[in-house]
Amino acid sequence: MKNFISVNDVASIDALVQKAIAYKAAPHKDKKLGADKRVGLLFLNPSMRTRLSTQIAAQNLGMESIVFNMDKDGWKLEFEDGAIMNGTSVEHIKDAAPIFGAYFDLLCIRTFPSLVNKQDDYNEVLVNQIIKYSGIPVISLESATLHPLQSFADVISITESFKEQRKPKIVLTWAPHIKPIPQCVANSFAQWINAWGHADFVITHPEGYELDTQFTEGAAIEHDQATALKDADFVYVKNWSSFTDYGKVLPDNEHWMLTTGHLKDTNNAKVMHCLPVRRNVELSDEVLDGPNSLVNLQAANRVWAAQTVLAEILTTQSN
Amino acid sequence: MKNFISVNDVASIDALVQKAIAYKAAPHKDKKLGADKRVGLLFLNPSMRTRLSTQIAAQNLGMESIVFNMDKDGWKLEFEDGAIMNGTSVEHIKDAAPIFGAYFDLLCIRTFPSLVNKQDDYNEVLVNQIIKYSGIPVISLESATLHPLQSFADVISITESFKEQRKPKIVLTWAPHIKPIPQCVANSFAQWINAWGHADFVITHPEGYELDTQFTEGAAIEHDQATALKDADFVYVKNWSSFTDYGKVLPDNEHWMLTTGHLKDTNNAKVMHCLPVRRNVELSDEVLDGPNSLVNLQAANRVWAAQTVLAEILTTQSN
Amino acid sequence: MKNFISVNDVASIDALVQKAIAYKAAPHKDKKLGADKRVGLLFLNPSMRTRLSTQIAAQNLGMESIVFNMDKDGWKLEFEDGAIMNGTSVEHIKDAAPIFGAYFDLLCIRTFPSLVNKQDDYNEVLVNQIIKYSGIPVISLESATLHPLQSFADVISITESFKEQRKPKIVLTWAPHIKPIPQCVANSFAQWINAWGHADFVITHPEGYELDTQFTEGAAIEHDQATALKDADFVYVKNWSSFTDYGKVLPDNEHWMLTTGHLKDTNNAKVMHCLPVRRNVELSDEVLDGPNSLVNLQAANRVWAAQTVLAEILTTQSN
Repeated sequence: MKNFISVNDVASIDALVQKAIAYKAAPHKDKKLGADKRVGLLFLNPSMRTRLSTQIAAQNLGMESIVFNMDKDGWKLEFEDGAIMNGTSVEHIKDAAPIFGAYFDLLCIRTFPSLVNKQDDYNEVLVNQIIKYSGIPVISLESATLHPLQSFADVISITESFKEQRKPKIVLTWAPHIKPIPQCVANSFAQWINAWGHADFVITHPEGYELDTQFTEGAAIEHDQATALKDADFVYVKNWSSFTDYGKVLPDNEHWMLTTGHLKDTNNAKVMHCLPVRRNVELSDEVLDGPNSLVNLQAANRVWAAQTVLAEILTTQSN
Repeated sequence: MKNFISVNDVASIDALVQKAIAYKAAPHKDKKLGADKRVGLLFLNPSMRTRLSTQIAAQNLGMESIVFNMDKDGWKLEFEDGAIMNGTSVEHIKDAAPIFGAYFDLLCIRTFPSLVNKQDDYNEVLVNQIIKYSGIPVISLESATLHPLQSFADVISITESFKEQRKPKIVLTWAPHIKPIPQCVANSFAQWINAWGHADFVITHPEGYELDTQFTEGAAIEHDQATALKDADFVYVKNWSSFTDYGKVLPDNEHWMLTTGHLKDTNNAKVMHCLPVRRNVELSDEVLDGPNSLVNLQAANRVWAAQTVLAEILTTQSN
Repeated sequence: MKNFISVNDVASIDALVQKAIAYKAAPHKDKKLGADKRVGLLFLNPSMRTRLSTQIAAQNLGMESIVFNMDKDGWKLEFEDGAIMNGTSVEHIKDAAPIFGAYFDLLCIRTFPSLVNKQDDYNEVLVNQIIKYSGIPVISLESATLHPLQSFADVISITESFKEQRKPKIVLTWAPHIKPIPQCVANSFAQWINAWGHADFVITHPEGYELDTQFTEGAAIEHDQATALKDADFVYVKNWSSFTDYGKVLPDNEHWMLTTGHLKDTNNAKVMHCLPVRRNVELSDEVLDGPNSLVNLQAANRVWAAQTVLAEILTTQSN
């Protein structure tokens, strides 16, 4: 594995999941793999689980890690080619990225979409410039369109929670929020479940919230939430803003908040969410606090997802 | 020791002090105790001595530590049960705390009181929710009502500085400040000195600044500062806002600022303060810069206090 | 070496450069030198290269490092002697610095000039108080008037890039910026090149931008940029605000921006800048992206500069 930006960087999802489960059983078994290697964790946006789990993963592999909050410890970066930098941006990514490349062996980076310039966001301009100018392996800690470490942790969690000899029915359902949220988690979950191939996969959302088909192709799209949820084994709850009317929040969908009532015709479905969650806006307390919630498992599995990806890249580097 | 929230978590103060003094003489003697253990340092409020001394203590024990500034690196937490989260809080402590529990072996946390809601503050709602939902040992780095690592360092400093065969007279004196300050340091110092039992202990403050009796019981309360300070061996200087008229600053007490003049009838008293100190508001330069100041010793002893508590909890865990 | 505040702390620049080049070839060769030693990295201002390179340097020497952003993790420091602290400053350097001295073996600190009080800035009041009150070796990560780790990395970069048997011609040229910038990098580069002595050294700038002669003495001053640049082997581009009319930006000097056109009569000059750079304000894209740019090399060499200085001080301490 050279970079980890999307599921397309993964040769075998099943093999990767098994490697993660092995790390979960023995966190320190590869403590020497990262000796004298250094990973930079570069945040252009806030983060809790991602930040902590990636640091822990690096420690488990014996790597040194350095966290850098670009916006708070440093300054504003410029990403536009040819910019005359007489405004608020202090440094161009063309100058900053090679330094990360010189200082680190691997680079992890979190960026968010603008939710304004759809073309730049969906071209992943920021991450691609960092890959281009840093010259070292780059791991996405969530980019403009995808959140692959989250999706990997989600597939680990589903694998651990479903032991039957059939394909589970997995439903990704849109949920309300109070402000515009990126499409990343939904795009990425759709992309991974489709690529994984071991599920009947349905996506449900109000009209106007269609996701980019490059990620959803292979899933059934169903606008009636009740129909979609019927017989579900897993319900992944997530808000996202409109892809069509880019970055917008459409009115009158508060009834999409997932409650125990919505779950009554499911197959005793496990409920998933990437966190942080707006309680009693996206999901009700009773669901989150109930026995079928997998949210803590998903978050805990972020460590093993990150550790596996770091280990894959270290192994590739040393070969 | 399971948690470290107040002096009530301590079996023997004297034994703990001796253990700290032993670490001070040989900082790295337990370098293997913390191998493959990880402590999270979670700050909901600013900190200097506490932050640095706890990281150093963890390093001395060979533990990995990760600092997380919840407000700056992450986002605002919700603590109200059943909240409809359509405001500024991004994540509920019920969802965040279990993640800390999954990622860390121990959790250190700093919170401050609201100084508005007395009942919530004095019920220690935040720390108790973190203990309840994280499921791992929790060390207070200062909570709504107490600052036990500071008090522990204070008792170490007194023990080191007083070698006579009698009980020292210790006076806790209120001092002016420019804004409302928590009662934590005063509450906690009173609680520890009372529990320690090796002192004649007097608390002096203007009327209206009475502390909660659950902490002060056992100490003499004296409203005349000069009378209180007479023959003192140690004078602990500290501001706090009103407990009765909760969080308020009462007028016309600037003359309580401790100067060398106030110390003339003491027994050549050592002067203590937890820092940071407002010079020439709480205490005069001449006292702070004089030979009887223990403030640097107190701050230095924060390392050994933190190291001792971390070691106690690690030892309990491994038994 | 006791402290590292300016070139005056260096016994032999050439020997220091050779030591840095040796570390570059074998970064981990002194991994045991820093065992059980701890360096504090204290930032009163933002930093990227300096912050990261110093942490990496410490890791390479096996030292523990702790980064503390005084302004963001802590609070505002007071530097005025005798201040009545009833304003926004929370802690006096007289109280904070001894704590750093108790907690760390070495202290690295970044401060910036006020650009308002010239006398305080040029007396290096902040750094000198930290040296005085901390009692441990202090390394400047840029102070009010100098940036010695940058200059050291610059001399390493020049040494690596010039193999002829003659003295190179080095030109420091002023460049435009959009706001008042400290004189530190220019002062420090001038001081180091003059002390180094292996160059023909010319400084060029618009009238009104004369630097303090204590740093420039030994260099030729030339107000005509084209004349200065003629036959240059190295062109160091940097903005600074006025030293005479302290902290001011003077009008109508935009044509000083360095472009390929300005370089045509040089000796195929290498171009240097300390970064971050305002592209197309200080320097044109074509120069920065061209083959003669040394900016990435300079930044990469910051690690070896920092590692060498840390090692020098550790060695002095243990003798």
